[in-house]
Amino acid sequence: MTTPTYFTRFPRIRFERDAQGILTMALHQDGGPLTFTAADHEALVDAFYEVGRDRANKVVILTGSGGDFIPGIDFSSFGDVSDPDVWSKVHDEGTQVLENIANIRVPMIFALEGRAHVHAEYGLLANVIVAGEGASFDDLPHFAGGIVPGDGIHTLWSHWVGPGRAMAMLLDPKPLTARAAQALGVVAEVVPDGAALARARAIAQGWLTRPEVTRRNTRIHFIQPIKERLVREVGYGLALEGASAAALVKSFRQAG
Amino acid sequence: MTTPTYFTRFPRIRFERDAQGILTMALHQDGGPLTFTAADHEALVDAFYEVGRDRANKVVILTGSGGDFIPGIDFSSFGDVSDPDVWSKVHDEGTQVLENIANIRVPMIFALEGRAHVHAEYGLLANVIVAGEGASFDDLPHFAGGIVPGDGIHTLWSHWVGPGRAMAMLLDPKPLTARAAQALGVVAEVVPDGAALARARAIAQGWLTRPEVTRRNTRIHFIQPIKERLVREVGYGLALEGASAAALVKSFRQAG
Amino acid sequence: MTTPTYFTRFPRIRFERDAQGILTMALHQDGGPLTFTAADHEALVDAFYEVGRDRANKVVILTGSGGDFIPGIDFSSFGDVSDPDVWSKVHDEGTQVLENIANIRVPMIFALEGRAHVHAEYGLLANVIVAGEGASFDDLPHFAGGIVPGDGIHTLWSHWVGPGRAMAMLLDPKPLTARAAQALGVVAEVVPDGAALARARAIAQGWLTRPEVTRRNTRIHFIQPIKERLVREVGYGLALEGASAAALVKSFRQAG
Amino acid sequence: MTTPTYFTRFPRIRFERDAQGILTMALHQDGGPLTFTAADHEALVDAFYEVGRDRANKVVILTGSGGDFIPGIDFSSFGDVSDPDVWSKVHDEGTQVLENIANIRVPMIFALEGRAHVHAEYGLLANVIVAGEGASFDDLPHFAGGIVPGDGIHTLWSHWVGPGRAMAMLLDPKPLTARAAQALGVVAEVVPDGAALARARAIAQGWLTRPEVTRRNTRIHFIQPIKERLVREVGYGLALEGASAAALVKSFRQAG
Amino acid sequence: MTTPTYFTRFPRIRFERDAQGILTMALHQDGGPLTFTAADHEALVDAFYEVGRDRANKVVILTGSGGDFIPGIDFSSFGDVSDPDVWSKVHDEGTQVLENIANIRVPMIFALEGRAHVHAEYGLLANVIVAGEGASFDDLPHFAGGIVPGDGIHTLWSHWVGPGRAMAMLLDPKPLTARAAQALGVVAEVVPDGAALARARAIAQGWLTRPEVTRRNTRIHFIQPIKERLVREVGYGLALEGASAAALVKSFRQAG
Amino acid sequence: MTTPTYFTRFPRIRFERDAQGILTMALHQDGGPLTFTAADHEALVDAFYEVGRDRANKVVILTGSGGDFIPGIDFSSFGDVSDPDVWSKVHDEGTQVLENIANIRVPMIFALEGRAHVHAEYGLLANVIVAGEGASFDDLPHFAGGIVPGDGIHTLWSHWVGPGRAMAMLLDPKPLTARAAQALGVVAEVVPDGAALARARAIAQGWLTRPEVTRRNTRIHFIQPIKERLVREVGYGLALEGASAAALVKSFRQAG
Repeated sequence: MTTPTYFTRFPRIRFERDAQGILTMALHQDGGPLTFTAADHEALVDAFYEVGRDRANKVVILTGSGGDFIPGIDFSSFGDVSDPDVWSKVHDEGTQVLENIANIRVPMIFALEGRAHVHAEYGLLANVIVAGEGASFDDLPHFAGGIVPGDGIHTLWSHWVGPGRAMAMLLDPKPLTARAAQALGVVAEVVPDGAALARARAIAQGWLTRPEVTRRNTRIHFIQPIKERLVREVGYGLALEGASAAALVKSFRQAG
Repeated sequence: MTTPTYFTRFPRIRFERDAQGILTMALHQDGGPLTFTAADHEALVDAFYEVGRDRANKVVILTGSGGDFIPGIDFSSFGDVSDPDVWSKVHDEGTQVLENIANIRVPMIFALEGRAHVHAEYGLLANVIVAGEGASFDDLPHFAGGIVPGDGIHTLWSHWVGPGRAMAMLLDPKPLTARAAQALGVVAEVVPDGAALARARAIAQGWLTRPEVTRRNTRIHFIQPIKERLVREVGYGLALEGASAAALVKSFRQAG
Repeated sequence: MTTPTYFTRFPRIRFERDAQGILTMALHQDGGPLTFTAADHEALVDAFYEVGRDRANKVVILTGSGGDFIPGIDFSSFGDVSDPDVWSKVHDEGTQVLENIANIRVPMIFALEGRAHVHAEYGLLANVIVAGEGASFDDLPHFAGGIVPGDGIHTLWSHWVGPGRAMAMLLDPKPLTARAAQALGVVAEVVPDGAALARARAIAQGWLTRPEVTRRNTRIHFIQPIKERLVREVGYGLALEGASAAALVKSFRQAG
Repeated sequence: MTTPTYFTRFPRIRFERDAQGILTMALHQDGGPLTFTAADHEALVDAFYEVGRDRANKVVILTGSGGDFIPGIDFSSFGDVSDPDVWSKVHDEGTQVLENIANIRVPMIFALEGRAHVHAEYGLLANVIVAGEGASFDDLPHFAGGIVPGDGIHTLWSHWVGPGRAMAMLLDPKPLTARAAQALGVVAEVVPDGAALARARAIAQGWLTRPEVTRRNTRIHFIQPIKERLVREVGYGLALEGASAAALVKSFRQAG
Repeated sequence: MTTPTYFTRFPRIRFERDAQGILTMALHQDGGPLTFTAADHEALVDAFYEVGRDRANKVVILTGSGGDFIPGIDFSSFGDVSDPDVWSKVHDEGTQVLENIANIRVPMIFALEGRAHVHAEYGLLANVIVAGEGASFDDLPHFAGGIVPGDGIHTLWSHWVGPGRAMAMLLDPKPLTARAAQALGVVAEVVPDGAALARARAIAQGWLTRPEVTRRNTRIHFIQPIKERLVREVGYGLALEGASAAALVKSFRQAG
Repeated sequence: MTTPTYFTRFPRIRFERDAQGILTMALHQDGGPLTFTAADHEALVDAFYEVGRDRANKVVILTGSGGDFIPGIDFSSFGDVSDPDVWSKVHDEGTQVLENIANIRVPMIFALEGRAHVHAEYGLLANVIVAGEGASFDDLPHFAGGIVPGDGIHTLWSHWVGPGRAMAMLLDPKPLTARAAQALGVVAEVVPDGAALARARAIAQGWLTRPEVTRRNTRIHFIQPIKERLVREVGYGLALEGASAAALVKSFRQAG
């Protein structure tokens, strides 16, 4: 099997696929933890699409690098989010990226080490989550920063833990530990720090004994209700978030 | 800012709004705990509408008085619920009141002291619930009394804690303590008795640093899936409840 | 009241109805635990329909026999599931059987003893679940056996415990004990082994004091959201499962 | 093939099945046009279920007798519709009958002669409608008679011709001719009076060349969106209709 | 019956109610045709709410004045629609106004004379539309003016005439005559110019012979599917329209 | 602006973009009419994705070549469609291709010349359809050929012309002329043969005066209800179609 061109197209995503087709997709910044930028937002839309369309991928593992998933975000990279043309791109990409993950039609594992403090919803579209002891979920970029958590983060948390806990987490964000997330049914297994990826690969190995159609169709069946919610909720959520971003910029300008 | 006329229009609702726009809406009966009547059912429809339409309200806190939210109900005030004209009014108000709460487009906190034993679903439409140690939820008026819990109480409990727990609670109603509700993700914070309102105000204060559009749109985003369920489920639920009320009256008459 | 003909129509279902209309419907094989076959799949479609249409049933209790609900399955009884005509029957029955349970318009209790390791979703369509200490839920026939858990088992577990726990359970099936299920809000009461049916009857007795319309309409209200999900999800799930079954047979033939 | 027992179970339904499995199901009263009664309402629930579950039926043709489908209704047969126990039965049957037609999983043709002036929605659940020149649709029993057209008649007309025309027809009922219905896309073919059944059989014949799974799955695919609407709308519609029936009885008593 | 206070609260809405409760609600500007302004947008939210909550209204007729419904719009009255605080108000009102019309729980007639060229969707929430010969529908304010037709106009047209015709009309707006609208099933009756209101009143009269519960519940049943669509689609539509308005202002500034 | 790589990636799709960003996407086979193959099915998934993600496209025109859109299909190119692995690919691509068209977030015009007799639903995802006098729609590959019309063709026709006409067309396929389609509201404009593309470009030109955000968001708003239906219906439809294809192959083998 030749290496697909998308394996080398994205400078901050490392792809690795073993002989059996288990794909590891690791977000990174120079090999270390990724500080999320607008360029990553754009890149991930296509990266997840390519992963989904490549039938040589049999199981997909999403992970980070350097002991973290995504610990932070560089807001300035997004430019003037009060400009409607700028936000139109954010809206379109933000809707598309989640649909593209949902359309990965093979089972997906989120191998979490360290902080999933930005765009944790990417990981919440996996079927199984394995986390290191010291891992945590949080939501830095939204209500804490003055904008609506409208990009799917509420939809996904609400789907996994119910709307009450989701609202509480997003209105008063603080790290949710791996163990606490396990008690809520979010994390399937907690492993020693550094062991999440290996454990994810072992789980993936176990699945390979089933027929490929079984694996694909199980994913399709499991993701269908979530996908329907994404399609109904995320576009509007991002539009509401865009208006809040414009209001935030306005308030900065008035204050400045 | 002048006092809006609705502040004094409802004899059993006390409105108080601070300089920053945090509105406290306290249900009461002569200053003490409210025993719910048909007149309250009608009044709350409009009261919540007025609260929702007044953009001077920046955060809304719903609470009770005298150490309780709503501890009891006066069924006789509703008249002959087997009369289709009587129930038509109950149906229409019961559908409308929940939509009006859902349409409060600013963040909402339920500050619960004592018993939320009647129409707890009003409080379950808040985004955050703060409860005193001795507080409890229950559902006195429905299955225990011989009628269908169709007025949204099942929809809301099901939404917060899943259908299994909701059905168990409503078929065999008994007080759910604040601590138990916290363990289920319903109550965000348990505070000493008497401290719920103050804590709710402190939380509201914290939110005021975000732009108004952010606050409004966050509420809109969070409530949208619940609102869609209300619109699909509550009208029918109340119609089913009405038929059960007519059957109950019939059984009384046959027994009588 | 004469005995309805369906009471004796199904050789592996024992019906018993007391004077007040509490129906017990016990699955069995020669009086002992049922190993599920294709004939049962067909029979249960009609059995649940008959139960639902008979207004003499006031409460329905579903249970097993010999200390188990359904501990195992005889796959060979289904014939060549890669034959599209064979699967067409499975698809149609599998969709219909869950709708027929959902259309039982009186409250329903699942009295579980021992293993609900096959078609546990039948029991998850009850309103209240009472389980013996040693009871457990599992899902033997699907992912473990190489096919998609598409027959409603995911929809029902997802509805009761959220999609995260449902996916984890179905991808890595192992017994969920009665106590663990109680902690998740699935089992309402855990009783000593052998006492589930008696306890279910006591609960049913308690409900009989309410008017019949109240009981029927409460069931209708509670089941409506689940029924809507079944109608949207199960047909597709079974079609995806059918394709996976064909792939499994193909893999056996290639291996063979 | 032996004759199924349901062929002779319903005194006012004549079943006839040819060697290829084309089933004709003709409603009649002593061989002539059917005046609809409460007994028919109950019978049709089961009749359509039996038709749907019998895999020997390859295509189903629904028709009337004596040159009419259903020209009239005998309201008095329903008893005191203001009695909640009476209406509970109407509600449950009315919901179930439409689902049972929707669950007939083979293509269905409505061969209409004369008047479909009562329960035309049964015919609107067919895939193809063939009508005699003199045939017409109408809705006698609802708004004209003082009750809500809530039993699915609005859902079906709205689905076929849009909500505007549906509302206009139901609020001001008058016969819609076969030709007018054809112009609206409802009737596929208009034939000379008396020729509808023969033409329906010819169409059915043409379908038999396709594989059975193709025929069944085409029906399933076509009916799915309608079925979802029925499940969402008809129960509530019938509950609203029941309340209106109680109000009508009340008005008669007050007038009386 | 005393005159309700809302009858005199809105300077550009004339209310008139006859002894039987037929309410005529006429939009006007100094007695002549209304040029729509931001103040009307705000006023109509409350006006429709008051109409809906007042159970003395038995049928509602919406109409215009001076031979037109709404012929034009004064965009400047809305202020700087690129300001997120300004648009937040438009979004909230625009969502609420349509829900408030949908929540008028008595049959509603749209008596159209002249131009419904702005906010025709208000009239499309009626159950029956009567139009003068010279009447026409159009959509001036949206795509023609450079913004998204997102305020419900697409949802309502799409609901009445299907998405194809709706898109064509909104992308290339030109007057749709009363006769053309009748051919599409939108207008129920075309009458001589000036006769629409009288004809609407005659229709309303005819409905009054049915029980009030029948009238109310028929409206509730008919409007439910439309209301569900409004709740799902209009908020997002208005958010998308708001972004387009900001882009339009930006383009003016760049051009300016 | 450099030419994007996808312009030359697909041998049977010709892309052409003018200086203003109006993209013409023409399906062809050696410059003439396309006979649809499995390779086209795969290629179009990616082609539409690329078109949708490229923000340099301002309006998209879909068309055919050589005086036809898609006049025929080469079934043999799909291989053994009774093989579950083969159909899994068809299912996944068939679902994805329609979502990718729906996710083209700029207005889209279908310029139809000649026959849209295969996959007409691609064109039905446009916002406006312009057709030459001699153009026609049909559905060759499904019921006529012995398989379920489950790939979205029913969903789209049903969405545009209602379920009655859609079912009639798909069960008894014959060419629907441009004029007939115009009368049904499907075709917006009929032009002389050969003039469709020029007219489509003229319409596209007219739209370019609106801001880009207006154009994008109008498309998003218009497509949202269709997209929700696609996501709910097409996957299941294709699964049902796959089973029918397996049954057809089985019947050939039995006959063979």
